[in-house]
Amino acid sequence: MSELRKDPTRAQWVLVRPRGAVAPDAGDCPFCPGNEAGTPPEIAAYRKDGSAPNSAGWQVRVIPEIDPYFRVEWDLVREGVGMYDKVSPRGAGELIIESPAHEDTPATMGSEKLERVLWMYRDRLEDLKRDTKIRDILVTRRHRKAGARLRHPYSRVTAIPVIYDDLRRELRESREYYQYKRRCLFCDILRQELSDHDRVVHLTPFFLTVVPYAARSPFETWILPRQHACAYETLSAEAGADLARLLSGYFGALASGLGDPAFDLSLHTAPNINSKILQGEWGTINDDYHWHLEIVVHPERANRVGGIFINETPPEEAARRLREAWR
Amino acid sequence: MSELRKDPTRAQWVLVRPRGAVAPDAGDCPFCPGNEAGTPPEIAAYRKDGSAPNSAGWQVRVIPEIDPYFRVEWDLVREGVGMYDKVSPRGAGELIIESPAHEDTPATMGSEKLERVLWMYRDRLEDLKRDTKIRDILVTRRHRKAGARLRHPYSRVTAIPVIYDDLRRELRESREYYQYKRRCLFCDILRQELSDHDRVVHLTPFFLTVVPYAARSPFETWILPRQHACAYETLSAEAGADLARLLSGYFGALASGLGDPAFDLSLHTAPNINSKILQGEWGTINDDYHWHLEIVVHPERANRVGGIFINETPPEEAARRLREAWR
Repeated sequence: MSELRKDPTRAQWVLVRPRGAVAPDAGDCPFCPGNEAGTPPEIAAYRKDGSAPNSAGWQVRVIPEIDPYFRVEWDLVREGVGMYDKVSPRGAGELIIESPAHEDTPATMGSEKLERVLWMYRDRLEDLKRDTKIRDILVTRRHRKAGARLRHPYSRVTAIPVIYDDLRRELRESREYYQYKRRCLFCDILRQELSDHDRVVHLTPFFLTVVPYAARSPFETWILPRQHACAYETLSAEAGADLARLLSGYFGALASGLGDPAFDLSLHTAPNINSKILQGEWGTINDDYHWHLEIVVHPERANRVGGIFINETPPEEAARRLREAWR
Repeated sequence: MSELRKDPTRAQWVLVRPRGAVAPDAGDCPFCPGNEAGTPPEIAAYRKDGSAPNSAGWQVRVIPEIDPYFRVEWDLVREGVGMYDKVSPRGAGELIIESPAHEDTPATMGSEKLERVLWMYRDRLEDLKRDTKIRDILVTRRHRKAGARLRHPYSRVTAIPVIYDDLRRELRESREYYQYKRRCLFCDILRQELSDHDRVVHLTPFFLTVVPYAARSPFETWILPRQHACAYETLSAEAGADLARLLSGYFGALASGLGDPAFDLSLHTAPNINSKILQGEWGTINDDYHWHLEIVVHPERANRVGGIFINETPPEEAARRLREAWR
């Protein structure tokens, strides 16, 4: 039994499933080159040397999760259970191994490697969106201090048959804003932040890095493309290179200037508009959503009383400290 | 500078304020009888012996928080900041000291003491709702394992000039449900759970204790009044005594049968309909909301991927284990 259940009091989805198997703590890192046989067969990889799949020689490698929350082999079934709603967790769970080097971190791997990871994000989104039963895909990247169980750098791709709660809220608010103003909410935020300047961390030709006005935790950071686009997959070659350089600088600033804190990065992008159900619910999504990256620094310090987040590092101060750390 | 800022991309409020003062770790517990001078003057107390305010002799005592997030002395100011919105954090932060006995815990204090705490919840809600600038009040109760800094049992009351995010979602969903069905969402949940029976933990004349269908974390528990009422303050004497007995049994089951886990209890009740602004936005709230208690057990184990909570203890299994622990 593994199912998505909807809490009718909050319209919120919860995955209920039996306890997953805990992978045995193998001596050797299964993500390192030469250990490819210790993972499920790869889904995709960048290989400059023409090496064979599931052998060493890759630069970035994508594998299915060993015990994924969402699976592509399952049927998509929507059912009522009395007054309640459930959906089978049909989707996908993948891991993007970012580099062959076990000791690489976001701060040390450099912009060239980061750029390859960014292209793999795009490739996986494009591929998964061909599956019309997938409605939403989240790419996340965690950084934890040394000592975490699996240190080899990786990102996670989780594709699901409903829309993520957080994205649904953003879609709703930005659509309401657009209908009222006929302007993109995020484009307006860009203009506002560039004129205020207090919360700006960094500006490149293609991206604004900013601490949001109502940051929920100290040092929360958003990276917004300056050119409007609802979907990450439309990233141009120049913008991708620019983003990789900027991320390298940002991760370096965190590591050298802020004591290498833990962080959670997530890619907020339009859901899968190839899905018919989604078209019925949301119509087209274009001028009314704006893809971006959100980074929650020190996620363990996010503090809330009821639904109210309490942030004791004002965003203007956080932006100043991030700017200083960047130098 | 201390202000509520609204995140326009999620319509979510965040309190931004400078770092609060950390109370010095006094040797003596400031909540114990005899140490009343070490706290701000009391707001209310139950005293059977006619003892003077701010002296020993109380059964339950309410004091202001030392460095509250929300203050009643501040003006209520709503302002635009460019495209953004902010509100001054006018409200109140109070602590309800539940018992004179430092070593009391929810599991050991017994139903008589718990009942007094429940009446104090009602008194504080009634009093605070006379203030029409207060829109919403949350009563919360944390239980942590021994070793937490302040062990003396207390609840927290936080009154704010906006509606809590979580309550807003519940109000919206339950109103939508009511408008469609002309039945209360929570009354329907009561009927559904009583007929399914799998997730029922305990039934008393006035309350149903249940693990919700889409529990977000293992052992999440809701306590729903069987008679419809939108506001906790309408609790009758019989129902109050019933609730105290049931909470005593529930807390005892957690402590003896589930290894005394940490938990967060919160009271979900209608917001302050005396507030004019709230009347404008929500009209009356009556048949379309249903007060209840929510208890998140093991809050540290709540696990989410994106907006999807992952719960690896199916609610039916959690309910069975809670029933067994109760015996």
